[in-house]
Amino acid sequence: MRSKLRGPSALLAALALGGLVGSVPTSTAADIPRQSCSDPTRQISLFAEKLGRDRIGYGLTPKSASIPGPTIQMTEGDCVAVNLVNDTNGRVSLHAHGVDYSPASDGTPHNLSCVPAHRSRTYVWSTHAPTVRQDGTVDPGSAGYWHYHDHCHGTPHGTGGIDAGLFGALIVRRAGDPVPDRPPFVVVFKDQTINLKKAPFTPIFKANLGERVEFVVIGHGNLFHTFHLHGHRWADTRTGTISSPDDTAPLIDNKTLGPADSFGFQIIAGEHVGQGAWMYHCHVQGHSDAGMTGLFVVRSAEGKMSPSTKAAVRRWKAMEGGGSHHHG
Amino acid sequence: MRSKLRGPSALLAALALGGLVGSVPTSTAADIPRQSCSDPTRQISLFAEKLGRDRIGYGLTPKSASIPGPTIQMTEGDCVAVNLVNDTNGRVSLHAHGVDYSPASDGTPHNLSCVPAHRSRTYVWSTHAPTVRQDGTVDPGSAGYWHYHDHCHGTPHGTGGIDAGLFGALIVRRAGDPVPDRPPFVVVFKDQTINLKKAPFTPIFKANLGERVEFVVIGHGNLFHTFHLHGHRWADTRTGTISSPDDTAPLIDNKTLGPADSFGFQIIAGEHVGQGAWMYHCHVQGHSDAGMTGLFVVRSAEGKMSPSTKAAVRRWKAMEGGGSHHHG
Amino acid sequence: MRSKLRGPSALLAALALGGLVGSVPTSTAADIPRQSCSDPTRQISLFAEKLGRDRIGYGLTPKSASIPGPTIQMTEGDCVAVNLVNDTNGRVSLHAHGVDYSPASDGTPHNLSCVPAHRSRTYVWSTHAPTVRQDGTVDPGSAGYWHYHDHCHGTPHGTGGIDAGLFGALIVRRAGDPVPDRPPFVVVFKDQTINLKKAPFTPIFKANLGERVEFVVIGHGNLFHTFHLHGHRWADTRTGTISSPDDTAPLIDNKTLGPADSFGFQIIAGEHVGQGAWMYHCHVQGHSDAGMTGLFVVRSAEGKMSPSTKAAVRRWKAMEGGGSHHHG
Repeated sequence: MRSKLRGPSALLAALALGGLVGSVPTSTAADIPRQSCSDPTRQISLFAEKLGRDRIGYGLTPKSASIPGPTIQMTEGDCVAVNLVNDTNGRVSLHAHGVDYSPASDGTPHNLSCVPAHRSRTYVWSTHAPTVRQDGTVDPGSAGYWHYHDHCHGTPHGTGGIDAGLFGALIVRRAGDPVPDRPPFVVVFKDQTINLKKAPFTPIFKANLGERVEFVVIGHGNLFHTFHLHGHRWADTRTGTISSPDDTAPLIDNKTLGPADSFGFQIIAGEHVGQGAWMYHCHVQGHSDAGMTGLFVVRSAEGKMSPSTKAAVRRWKAMEGGGSHHHG
Repeated sequence: MRSKLRGPSALLAALALGGLVGSVPTSTAADIPRQSCSDPTRQISLFAEKLGRDRIGYGLTPKSASIPGPTIQMTEGDCVAVNLVNDTNGRVSLHAHGVDYSPASDGTPHNLSCVPAHRSRTYVWSTHAPTVRQDGTVDPGSAGYWHYHDHCHGTPHGTGGIDAGLFGALIVRRAGDPVPDRPPFVVVFKDQTINLKKAPFTPIFKANLGERVEFVVIGHGNLFHTFHLHGHRWADTRTGTISSPDDTAPLIDNKTLGPADSFGFQIIAGEHVGQGAWMYHCHVQGHSDAGMTGLFVVRSAEGKMSPSTKAAVRRWKAMEGGGSHHHG
Repeated sequence: MRSKLRGPSALLAALALGGLVGSVPTSTAADIPRQSCSDPTRQISLFAEKLGRDRIGYGLTPKSASIPGPTIQMTEGDCVAVNLVNDTNGRVSLHAHGVDYSPASDGTPHNLSCVPAHRSRTYVWSTHAPTVRQDGTVDPGSAGYWHYHDHCHGTPHGTGGIDAGLFGALIVRRAGDPVPDRPPFVVVFKDQTINLKKAPFTPIFKANLGERVEFVVIGHGNLFHTFHLHGHRWADTRTGTISSPDDTAPLIDNKTLGPADSFGFQIIAGEHVGQGAWMYHCHVQGHSDAGMTGLFVVRSAEGKMSPSTKAAVRRWKAMEGGGSHHHG
């Protein structure tokens, strides 16, 4: 599970990019928008389905809906056509952050892009790499840790859909960005829950010592939060990493997260700190006390969880389960 | 209305600036403060006037007060003398963010820089370009998307003045910064309003496809918000743009905004997405449901609003007007 | 008290660092964690002690506890062993942000790293400089404006300890970072207090015109705040400064601060604005009105406070003392 990344020479080449700006393709100031994918990179379906009494999730196949929904990954230049099948009794939609779409794929009532009950609709999301515009300024591209969510259910702003669980992560990478060794860990802070759950029922993410892992952190709802991870830290940049030791970006391990804010970062599991059961949590004290905590478990490089880490996980479950924030 | 910007060669020159640091003028560690503009770039007046029962605004001339007040634009190096004429029955002031001023222009009670009812006072704001200090560190200059507001009315911190509408945008540009094709769009998120209004009475900003437009976003009051714009995205930098495709700054379309936070960005209207009625709104769900939404309308390159965009604007007005957040 | 910083040539050398990346030492992807300091840079003690009825502070020696606790400063590469002596009747701990530590130094209940009443425990914090990893990515180092706090008292998340005052600043510098002329000014925004105090009992920080001073700003508790400083501004970077005039980082004088967020910056006292009594405050209007304000007093270069500054300080005390937010 070692990282399959570019070597130091590739990094040095990237650092030299400043001088290569002139070779970046130029574009007209406002490209003709693509109303559809003439040559879609990928066509996928998302099924909006009820999950118990008051929950709705997105799934890639029928009967597989989850909260958050499936993580969709693109690379700048990709165009994806997403067919949303609405298997619920109310209208729902897809509104994406970060990517390019025409009003028909805005996912909003006023742009007539909701999906009525038991109907389907195709949303088209395209992306683009950075270019230097004809006026010399830079179009910064589409790469980012984004997300998608309903914008039609309950209120014209999708409040009912978001409350029910209609949200997921959308990652757009730039060519050359490092890629993680495992599927991304997605954390949605919404009101006083993580992924609509409270500890000890929140996600326990697991990785092996030395693996490159990726967190995507998304806010939703009405409250503001701060995301904190123990034992690891990252840079407050587009990727969460820096490309040169003299980058001036802040290094952080705690970040304010408002509704629909999103960020992500990659870290090496246990780097400098070793195996263990590392908490991630909202650092608003009342929120962590109410159950907004989870674990990032670092096992041995061979994938074995040490006895002391196992014991720490057990203690965390008991500790978080003993409070007043029991689930259900 | 094409952008009148520097060409690619100017951009490349800017990118090369790193090597020119030694040529930036040095200054003493602490310049003698300018208590007044001996050679003011500009002298302006601001009139503080009642606007209905409980509102007060700033205007550049008598009887022209608005909320927000007029946008004041400077370039690093400029010095502006602002004569504040207080046409209200209470004390008011001007407190500016970002620029240089002596205590006499601080706009605060303890610095004796309020304006009593029916009196006037001149505030002096100067700005400076970046320099390398004699100790080798960099004075970062004054450029930014700033704002000004009252700091004396109602409470010693201007809470009453801000509640009434005494605030406006202050933009300080650096030589060479891109400039927009239209006057900046100013958005003030205060409590559960935009510019003290609720949808559908919030601003509908209009531009033509391909124009360079500028948003200035300011927070005030007691609540935290997130500003989101549909169909467009920007970089979390000083200007909202990047100067090189390998800049590590996050690309965002949603940003947390606390009281007195401010940021701005320039985008190309409809770039990659085309004409349409694009929402901007606070993404705190309860706030958008309460009326914190507006529209950014992208017309054709020739300035014609398409029938489908017109219809979307009508639907937005109906949709936002049907809620419980009616104005007044 | 002039700054003892690197000269322009050192700055230019730093700017050239991009080309030197290859010479930065490489490390294995995940170093073996240091469970203890075999060669500690420094060994210190912290004493957790009651301060009146419901307050607890950390101090470097018995009977010297303060709120916030002592500021601990490290340079990347340093390793510090901190012996926490618990002189209270409840369990307490040390949880540090930003630095490297094994689970035994995590300071949390589930990692069995609390200190029972009247016992002691040694926490080991190490730090590291940036390196290029074997896969070509960059380990960004440990430098930052961090903080430490209790994570065991009252609740498993240390809410009781933080409420009582168990927090302090932790600064990790990078070799070559500028250093301030005075001990850092530490500001903790917690609920509606600054360092658990309300104006006029909040800190009045003093410096001489032209001195390099450093603010460290930390959030705690349940509320979100914005930190604003009058007459001065900084860059939103790791150090609060930029190393080149063409850095794209935002320049700010107001910053959102959630619980456990932290940032810092260095400014030249009175640069461009001169002597005076400059307010710093939370810009949430209700919070500033409730007493979340303080002063940064800039004296003459020789250390004399001018009569007008003295008068402004007196007025500020009277102004802030007359409200409903009296202390106690």
